Amino acid sequence: MENKDHKFAPPLYVTGQKCFICGSVYSYGNVQTCPKCGIEGILDVCYDYDEIKKHLTPATLLSRKFDHWRYKELLPVPDDIQLPHLHVGWSPVYDVPRLASHLGIKKLWIKDDGRNPTNSFKDRASSVGVLKAIEFGFSTIACASTGNAASSLAGLSAAVGLQSFIFVPQRAPEPKITQLLVFGATVLKVQGTYENAFDLCREACEKFGWYNRNSGTNPFLVEGKKTAGLEIAEQCANDLPDWVVVSVGDGCTIGGIGKGLQEMKRLGFIGRVPRLLGVQAEGARAMVNAFKSGTDLIPTETNTIADSIAVGTPRNWRRAIGQIKQSHGEMITVSDEEILEAMKSTARFGGVFGEPAGVTAAAGLKRALETKIISPNESALVIVTGNGLKDIQSAKQAVGDPISLPPTMAALTAVLSSRKTN
Amino acid sequence: MENKDHKFAPPLYVTGQKCFICGSVYSYGNVQTCPKCGIEGILDVCYDYDEIKKHLTPATLLSRKFDHWRYKELLPVPDDIQLPHLHVGWSPVYDVPRLASHLGIKKLWIKDDGRNPTNSFKDRASSVGVLKAIEFGFSTIACASTGNAASSLAGLSAAVGLQSFIFVPQRAPEPKITQLLVFGATVLKVQGTYENAFDLCREACEKFGWYNRNSGTNPFLVEGKKTAGLEIAEQCANDLPDWVVVSVGDGCTIGGIGKGLQEMKRLGFIGRVPRLLGVQAEGARAMVNAFKSGTDLIPTETNTIADSIAVGTPRNWRRAIGQIKQSHGEMITVSDEEILEAMKSTARFGGVFGEPAGVTAAAGLKRALETKIISPNESALVIVTGNGLKDIQSAKQAVGDPISLPPTMAALTAVLSSRKTN
Repeated sequence: MENKDHKFAPPLYVTGQKCFICGSVYSYGNVQTCPKCGIEGILDVCYDYDEIKKHLTPATLLSRKFDHWRYKELLPVPDDIQLPHLHVGWSPVYDVPRLASHLGIKKLWIKDDGRNPTNSFKDRASSVGVLKAIEFGFSTIACASTGNAASSLAGLSAAVGLQSFIFVPQRAPEPKITQLLVFGATVLKVQGTYENAFDLCREACEKFGWYNRNSGTNPFLVEGKKTAGLEIAEQCANDLPDWVVVSVGDGCTIGGIGKGLQEMKRLGFIGRVPRLLGVQAEGARAMVNAFKSGTDLIPTETNTIADSIAVGTPRNWRRAIGQIKQSHGEMITVSDEEILEAMKSTARFGGVFGEPAGVTAAAGLKRALETKIISPNESALVIVTGNGLKDIQSAKQAVGDPISLPPTMAALTAVLSSRKTN
Repeated sequence: MENKDHKFAPPLYVTGQKCFICGSVYSYGNVQTCPKCGIEGILDVCYDYDEIKKHLTPATLLSRKFDHWRYKELLPVPDDIQLPHLHVGWSPVYDVPRLASHLGIKKLWIKDDGRNPTNSFKDRASSVGVLKAIEFGFSTIACASTGNAASSLAGLSAAVGLQSFIFVPQRAPEPKITQLLVFGATVLKVQGTYENAFDLCREACEKFGWYNRNSGTNPFLVEGKKTAGLEIAEQCANDLPDWVVVSVGDGCTIGGIGKGLQEMKRLGFIGRVPRLLGVQAEGARAMVNAFKSGTDLIPTETNTIADSIAVGTPRNWRRAIGQIKQSHGEMITVSDEEILEAMKSTARFGGVFGEPAGVTAAAGLKRALETKIISPNESALVIVTGNGLKDIQSAKQAVGDPISLPPTMAALTAVLSSRKTN
């Protein structure tokens, strides 16, 4: 399964990987978790920031392409590797005054990550993942995913010509499964939960010599996710939001964004790091429980419409909670009803249609304003992490049916009059 | 319904609108079709190209944003109107050597217009349409659509705060309907064909004073569509494709792209115009019939999986056929099976998942290579006009089901072994 005909130079500025639990630092290479601490020992990629500071500046960025590879010094990717052709990152940031006024906040931006190639935030991670597989000599890559990481990995694997095996839990929505079948992935629908799919994928990677793309445990994937934080710092440098609001599943997304923002502060692009508001669904609140209690994470059952964040055992909870606390941030939960309501308001007042997990941040912002965690005089940026077309069944719960009528003006006039009187 | 509190200055370089049939030129204003020729009298927006040439140059473009408003001199939009905040256009052009080799052509690019805000090419037109409604003092806009123009209009209307009424035919796929309900449009599902929906929308606009966004007849909408042609000229200026391949429904898309390419030649950005290959589904081939016979268009029944181009009465056939002939191009049909096959190959070798009409151009390229309309030594750019998530039911016909298995290594090993022996 491995393809070792080319040796890539190691990424220029990576100095090693450090365990979040025991603090051991490992030299750069194909490692997943800390050998001493096991699956809990998530590793954090370390960089030589003093050296990076000489090369990554507002001036050098001027001439670079507008995708997430523009921050190449901050990515664990060899300089001589061919990048996927799909355009990943540099998702638009929209100033949305009508949504701001609807929610009751002074200033609001949406960063629409549903605009990525396979329509979710996860393309940031998968685009790094497929390069790591190639760099380390694998011809096959695998992941377990509630859906978006799966379709993202399938799309990016197709783009670079890797074979992909995807383990999905039983509840993954059909559009996401179809999307990855179209991309040519081998799809294994595991009769069980996300955790069952996750464990089986991990065992299979070890047994069959596949590269494991699971972003919960793979130290490099979260580096791809952090590019959203790097972009926010660059795109909003002149008017940095007080809060960045992010939906939370595994913890990698908010943890990555926090890391990216911290790095941009360290490199002098921004003077402060916005406070992070992490939002979970009430039916999948393991991370919020740990954040509030200050104890280690206790896995929970999950029950929420927001399948992309329906994670009972968030693997990257130390990173996520660490970043939120470092930013003086907060965590909060929202109900499925609030998520569906946010889906409508984000679309109707912001022009952006997000899937349930994609608009969970917007629902969280509303709740945070109601509970006075965020003041109406502050500003916020919410990240929409996935396109609404990903999960039409849930969207249907948020809206009614169309009005059906015969093709006559009489019928139309009757419909419009009855709407006025109702 | 009308909102006349602001008078906008007319677009700077528009000199009038000229009828495709009788050649009459009308001065700039809120007209739809030629008063002399009726609904058949489609109007073409005319510009002062000599003046534009002074302002729209490679040098002036350098400092402009990468969206389709960068060609503002070539758009019928007042200078003092606020543009929608959604990022429209400047969709990526991908060099896809693996798809090229699969199809047997020397060089191939994909331009992925599924990357637009509501995931289809139609956002180019709708973004202009909502501005025309605002400019002409309307607070309500309407359209009839097989789906993408609808969701696009709903999204852009939400973005700028216009009320939208959408007439859809009975066969419009559910994801597209749900998408526009989420955006807050009033959706009228007409018990009949696209033509019934089209006629009822037109009558309703006249009766209730709504702005009619139907791109088949509205002269300004196609100007939005032509930006894809403007972009191709700019993005591919250094290595212009021999062919640009486009799926054809109403005729506005290929007609617009042709106009855009001609304009860029006239302005000196490119030295020649690529040949246009227009591709229809076998089950909706009215335009191909007229192209081949040289006679006026005869409406046909439609029956194809590619709902976005299932148009029996293409309104803009004169523009489309005129542009194709001017480019020394061709027209061709493909079967639904070829469309589904192209959906898989475009995703698996190009990394882009398109809806049926979205990949019809790729299917047409394959057929054109087989029938020697295009030679293997030429180059081509295919436009993917809509995201595959728009029509999952069709995509499901292209692929099988996932492999379902219990969460055990024994089950997985058995599945993999049986796949190897099969």
